[in-house]
Amino acid sequence: MADPLGTWREGAAKGAILSFVRSVTEPGPGFVPPAQRIATFDNDGTLWCEKPLYVQADFIFRKWKAMVAADPSLAAEQPYKAVVDGDRAWLAGMLDHVPELLKGLGAAFGGITTEAFETQVKGFFTDARHPTLGTPYTQVGYRPMLELVAFLETNEFKVFICTGGGRDFVRVVGEEMYGVPRERVIGSGPMLEFRDGALYRTAGVEQPIDDGPGKPVHIWTRTGRPPLFAGGNSDGDIEMLASARFGLLVHHDDAEREFAYDVLAERALAEAAQRGWTVASMKDDFATVFEGVAPSIVGADART
Amino acid sequence: MADPLGTWREGAAKGAILSFVRSVTEPGPGFVPPAQRIATFDNDGTLWCEKPLYVQADFIFRKWKAMVAADPSLAAEQPYKAVVDGDRAWLAGMLDHVPELLKGLGAAFGGITTEAFETQVKGFFTDARHPTLGTPYTQVGYRPMLELVAFLETNEFKVFICTGGGRDFVRVVGEEMYGVPRERVIGSGPMLEFRDGALYRTAGVEQPIDDGPGKPVHIWTRTGRPPLFAGGNSDGDIEMLASARFGLLVHHDDAEREFAYDVLAERALAEAAQRGWTVASMKDDFATVFEGVAPSIVGADART
Repeated sequence: MADPLGTWREGAAKGAILSFVRSVTEPGPGFVPPAQRIATFDNDGTLWCEKPLYVQADFIFRKWKAMVAADPSLAAEQPYKAVVDGDRAWLAGMLDHVPELLKGLGAAFGGITTEAFETQVKGFFTDARHPTLGTPYTQVGYRPMLELVAFLETNEFKVFICTGGGRDFVRVVGEEMYGVPRERVIGSGPMLEFRDGALYRTAGVEQPIDDGPGKPVHIWTRTGRPPLFAGGNSDGDIEMLASARFGLLVHHDDAEREFAYDVLAERALAEAAQRGWTVASMKDDFATVFEGVAPSIVGADART
Repeated sequence: MADPLGTWREGAAKGAILSFVRSVTEPGPGFVPPAQRIATFDNDGTLWCEKPLYVQADFIFRKWKAMVAADPSLAAEQPYKAVVDGDRAWLAGMLDHVPELLKGLGAAFGGITTEAFETQVKGFFTDARHPTLGTPYTQVGYRPMLELVAFLETNEFKVFICTGGGRDFVRVVGEEMYGVPRERVIGSGPMLEFRDGALYRTAGVEQPIDDGPGKPVHIWTRTGRPPLFAGGNSDGDIEMLASARFGLLVHHDDAEREFAYDVLAERALAEAAQRGWTVASMKDDFATVFEGVAPSIVGADART
């Protein structure tokens, strides 16, 4: 029989995943009926690459640059100024600039229909390339994680993507990249208004956002169950992982083939040790990282 | 071949449903891929009986009565007073008493876990009987509508329940009554908080509620698509029906076998004529109404 997780190296992480899935799918005391087999995965840094910047940040920054091109007076204002000046420090301190960022997001995407937004997202995925890998963003999914999603689906799990980022952004590529249909993409989003037969995005944000303690809330409201299996990579995934029977934490420790960083994952790594979550080392547990991209090429490009 | 809608009488409504489903599932210009076949149904008055009072109202009123039994001083306050006194006029004017009702709901079900709420709902469905039909509430689903739900599922539609009432209330029986799994029940609900590994209901209500213009918003946030097929019965379903390719409006015109009323459906009936929605007359189009209940007995009991 073919190895269902052939892109995973033999080791503790692969063993724990296979053993858990067997325990809940085979007859015995641990059996869980298919209806209760909910799996949830964070997206940025768990299913696809989030460095050197979030994919959706690239989308938003391009839009802000285009707005400045159309109206140069905007270049004096934040958040446009930071994008035009390439001010990484300002942009990295996102949490200190929430009002400006929300204003910029509202100006960029508020007041348009969900359909118009989708057209822009599709254009981005067609045109944009990952800054270091050079590939379309639809190819920056981690091959072993895509294989894991498929393996869970084969075992009658219902897999949901639970992104802290934009639900309607990820939905555009979720089916193509992960085989996850639109109704199984959970994430943050704007408040919407229905008028004249269409749905309009507003400048307001639906609460709670799908991050931290908001993740188990979103998972419940969308599925009516706690996750049986959850996968994440950062501190924003702690509550989701804590609410799951099996928690998988992706550790970014592979500077050669991807990026090595623990920033914003320090607490999650500490909790993993305490709570017995399975840690997947990208360096040791992933036999390959990016689908359809030769590891040597990726490594060379990613070393920036 | 067996008639897939055998509990529907031959007529315009059944013909329109069969013709539409054929047009989107068979090869041809109208074909719609299965991934896009989303069907959404209102619950109260569309899938199950909402008279003489909403099923969930019975659940809530029983709880308020139990609260008064435990603390008789509550009997002087609204909304408890109206329930204890059987003040139908006060209760019927729900929209005039929103603050009192929300306070009563918060006191009854706020601060408890989703699990504790579910235990209460299960107890209600075990103990309570429909006041005129005398059957458990799990038997007050309309047989022809359940058959329609199954028919759509057979034709690779994904059927969602989109209730103006409580999502977590309907989820408890959605699978058993309709074959609709928990993750496909969309509805109104409280704001939730995750702490100490559990989800707690708060006294706040998630906005927008799943009624009127909130329905297409909920459907989008949960499915990422507009409905291809939608079924409703009242004014609160107008926007959902308007956002669907095929709209079905259940008309309560059968005083013998169910209840005859147009209250809160006047606008919907007028819109149906204008927009070409299919109207299902319970009297003329339903060959039977309640599953497993002899029509003659139901008729006798329902004439109150």
